Amino acid sequence: MRELLRAARREEPSDLLLKGGRFANVFTMEYETADIAVKDGIIVGIGEGYEAAEVVDCSGGTIVPGFIDGHMHVESTFMTPRNLAATIVPLGTTTIMPDPHEIANTCGMEGIRFMYAESQGLPLDIYYGAPSCVPASNFETPREMLTAKNIRELFDEGICTHLGEMMNYPDVYLGNRDVWSKLEAAKGKIITGHAPQLEGADLIAYILGGPSCDHECESIENALEKLRLGMWLMVRQGATARNLTALAPLIRENEFLTTRAMAVSDDISPDFIRQRGHMNGCIRELIAEGVSPLAALRMTTFSPAEYFQLFDRGAIAPGRIADIVLLDTLESCKAKKVWKRGNLVAENGKLVLPIEGADSRRFPGNKNSVPMPLLQEIEVRPPKNAIKAPRINVIGTIRGQVITKRLEMTPTVKDGLITADPDRDIAKLVVVEKNQGTGRTAVGFVHNYGMKRGAIASSIAHDAHNYTCIGADDTSIKKALDTLYAMGGGIVLTDGDLVLAKLELPVGGLMSTLPFDELCAETAKLAEARKILNPDNAEAFMQLSFLSLSVIPELKLTDQGYCDISAGGAQPLFVED
Amino acid sequence: MRELLRAARREEPSDLLLKGGRFANVFTMEYETADIAVKDGIIVGIGEGYEAAEVVDCSGGTIVPGFIDGHMHVESTFMTPRNLAATIVPLGTTTIMPDPHEIANTCGMEGIRFMYAESQGLPLDIYYGAPSCVPASNFETPREMLTAKNIRELFDEGICTHLGEMMNYPDVYLGNRDVWSKLEAAKGKIITGHAPQLEGADLIAYILGGPSCDHECESIENALEKLRLGMWLMVRQGATARNLTALAPLIRENEFLTTRAMAVSDDISPDFIRQRGHMNGCIRELIAEGVSPLAALRMTTFSPAEYFQLFDRGAIAPGRIADIVLLDTLESCKAKKVWKRGNLVAENGKLVLPIEGADSRRFPGNKNSVPMPLLQEIEVRPPKNAIKAPRINVIGTIRGQVITKRLEMTPTVKDGLITADPDRDIAKLVVVEKNQGTGRTAVGFVHNYGMKRGAIASSIAHDAHNYTCIGADDTSIKKALDTLYAMGGGIVLTDGDLVLAKLELPVGGLMSTLPFDELCAETAKLAEARKILNPDNAEAFMQLSFLSLSVIPELKLTDQGYCDISAGGAQPLFVED
Repeated sequence: MRELLRAARREEPSDLLLKGGRFANVFTMEYETADIAVKDGIIVGIGEGYEAAEVVDCSGGTIVPGFIDGHMHVESTFMTPRNLAATIVPLGTTTIMPDPHEIANTCGMEGIRFMYAESQGLPLDIYYGAPSCVPASNFETPREMLTAKNIRELFDEGICTHLGEMMNYPDVYLGNRDVWSKLEAAKGKIITGHAPQLEGADLIAYILGGPSCDHECESIENALEKLRLGMWLMVRQGATARNLTALAPLIRENEFLTTRAMAVSDDISPDFIRQRGHMNGCIRELIAEGVSPLAALRMTTFSPAEYFQLFDRGAIAPGRIADIVLLDTLESCKAKKVWKRGNLVAENGKLVLPIEGADSRRFPGNKNSVPMPLLQEIEVRPPKNAIKAPRINVIGTIRGQVITKRLEMTPTVKDGLITADPDRDIAKLVVVEKNQGTGRTAVGFVHNYGMKRGAIASSIAHDAHNYTCIGADDTSIKKALDTLYAMGGGIVLTDGDLVLAKLELPVGGLMSTLPFDELCAETAKLAEARKILNPDNAEAFMQLSFLSLSVIPELKLTDQGYCDISAGGAQPLFVED
Repeated sequence: MRELLRAARREEPSDLLLKGGRFANVFTMEYETADIAVKDGIIVGIGEGYEAAEVVDCSGGTIVPGFIDGHMHVESTFMTPRNLAATIVPLGTTTIMPDPHEIANTCGMEGIRFMYAESQGLPLDIYYGAPSCVPASNFETPREMLTAKNIRELFDEGICTHLGEMMNYPDVYLGNRDVWSKLEAAKGKIITGHAPQLEGADLIAYILGGPSCDHECESIENALEKLRLGMWLMVRQGATARNLTALAPLIRENEFLTTRAMAVSDDISPDFIRQRGHMNGCIRELIAEGVSPLAALRMTTFSPAEYFQLFDRGAIAPGRIADIVLLDTLESCKAKKVWKRGNLVAENGKLVLPIEGADSRRFPGNKNSVPMPLLQEIEVRPPKNAIKAPRINVIGTIRGQVITKRLEMTPTVKDGLITADPDRDIAKLVVVEKNQGTGRTAVGFVHNYGMKRGAIASSIAHDAHNYTCIGADDTSIKKALDTLYAMGGGIVLTDGDLVLAKLELPVGGLMSTLPFDELCAETAKLAEARKILNPDNAEAFMQLSFLSLSVIPELKLTDQGYCDISAGGAQPLFVED
């Protein structure tokens, strides 16, 4: 410590000196021109007269704190923490706060521990939220239920620092004992929220439970109500769920609100990252919406740091860790250099050195053996002895949305079997339970999804992430499921017995071990193959991944069968009169 | 908890409903019109449609959070915590963060424990800082030195929540081991600062030690430098040290800075409270300086709550404790009603019910026996065998300041004794060590203090608070000191053998047991008597109380003799050639 003090008082040289740039002061919301001295990874000097072993000329550039993503899911990026770090650190992100609830569903506590272990030693600080809602509902089958006791363990072992998004908002405001025991387990810690469309008295009761932020605001009215009630606003800009344009006017009109607002990414895909970046993309987009550059910066640095009480970062100030980005300008938000704890880790969009070590650890996979369904087991026959033509429940998808409609339709019957029918835009949906290895299989039908032929199988199916397949014929479905099983998870597109494209996601059935560039090449192939099978639905992968999420209305299919949470739960395939 | 939820969801009546008023929203910085429901001391509803056992019509009024004083010393008010609560709660203050370092000097750990015990069960939350600088320097004699171990004890026992003002800034930035061990003991806790005129590299090094706020800013330049470096600004408005007018323009020009700024009172006297109130007075004065009412409010509610991480208060919001003030308007800031944790505790400037219990506990006093000096022991004789006329060091006071000048003067000699001389405005100053009961006595002289006759003795003499007396003749001094000793501390004014006025401060030699009104009547008598003895110096009591504070330049007198910190320490009475 004495050395830091001597460096601060210019009696000794520092390690690093950023010279001649202007820096963004998030306390006073202004640019300052000053040199910045760093020693032992800590900012020890701001001003003039400092010397250092290494001097970096920053003239003409803008120096900002490393970006912080206050809410995201590593699994959505298809990358392991290591590969994700290699991708987003060069974009200026130095801290993320992920909720590992995807892998928690497929691999339980083992999965969370794996994520934590893989997050050590990276040039990116990863602070995990303890998943609060595994399973998402009783209609879904995770590897294991995460209880309050598990959550306490995750805190006690230092694996998690806060409570992950509390999605089960009705049980919070209704006072459900199990949910409240999880809230109790997180007492004194930050409890993050998830409260779509919640308002009025129910929202107030939800807040009493402890959730202090929300990333599910779609309208200014809802965002403002939550801000007024003391919640922090997370303006989400994900690959699919994008609220930035809707909410930016709120910030633009009153930038004081940046004191309680931040930008987060929630679910972002490799392609999305490639096209628009990470938090640097949020800054650009906020500025494009008319938010001032410093306010946009605050929403991606100081505000998330304050919300998560990470008082050691989020600003260029003495005593804070030297997570620093040298940009050309905030407006273009291109990271010329990135320092993590004072070490130069990226330059011009590339890591300076590869991240040490390798993804060598045994990663948690699926149960060794899952009895996959035979062809006959995915066939659907009309009820025997039926007096009149049967009618079935069908999931009606809506483009651009994850909610669905429950439709009643007369099925297409061929050779005594109820089948998919591309002409009527009816596809067959099959879900095979994998997390517990039972192979329990449910079959349903989907309207308006756009399958012309073949099948798409995926092990990404929120939140339980079972083997899920949608297709136009049983042969394609069977081939896709078997291929998926053989890969240990991923995404497969088949046309009859032909595999058109596949992406292996062996890490928990959710993540690839490929680095970013190779991963993007693979996902591009998936997109090409999708155009053959389902030319009109650019959201096909995303929609498929939400067809099992039981907590979103109306009709969904889990391994336990149809479920409509808005109609009280389980639903039959055949409509009963 | 279920009951709170049911009340929040309007399924059950609440305890209290504030109906028809507008309230100040410190998150969005706007007034809102809504009813506010309270149950079990918690705000559970904001909006319409609530019912409650007790409904209060607030129409026409403004509802605000209870005020918070982020830095003050209870001892300066001459009141015990109980009497102080009875005085300031009716003014709208519901939380204070005092540093008990005065009683820590006179009574050690016992004194701090006493203050904590006396602070329980009040309608005022009192969170103490652990005194970080007892003694203020090695030239002062406290009851006991407070070490890092003591500080750790105070935290472990829950007596203190943060580290009190770290006044020894040179030893922070120089890396002194003892001081740093105290900073280490406070790791992870808020460390409050005290850094007058500190700037540049030394200020940065001080910040590296952990202090994250400062209440010693006198200029906008210094305040802005500290804000830019990430410190929180405490705009102090004390009875003597008043920085509000100087700093208000900074806030007025950029109210975004209220996110990092608060108003505090530091040292306030009974008369000051009577004349202008407490935090309500700060709000009025800030508004008078052109700060917007909501910004002024934020500086006395939400900002201190945020700084001290008291996330359960400082705002009218669900889940926060119902510390609520009903004002006529923010501009006049008159508290019509005050609720503490949902209980009505004050109305129209008066407590609703007396505070339960009484000041019945044994309070820490002085050592039973202090050998007080004989008359001969306060006499000063010129050195024997002196070749030429002696010259002495004299403390030169400056009106309106606590700093002094070191003067060299030729003393007045009468009957072979060096004496005070009202004609030349030279008074004699005597300090008698009381905290350890040694009775060690030091004598010096003061110029420009204005004593025409008689003596003023006081046991308030920062920071060690020894028996201190300034006078125009030895008889008055002796009488004043003996009376002071007999009272166990306080303030005494004598004229020869006549006691003109006295105030007993038996609690640690610092605090009275009198309630506010009686106390003010007594202090008024002191002021009248002062006018007889020292008609021109309205600051006489305040100046006397700082004549022993060794850490402020130039010349001071402690029980160990003259001290000039700017000249390296101890100084002799007689100037050596």
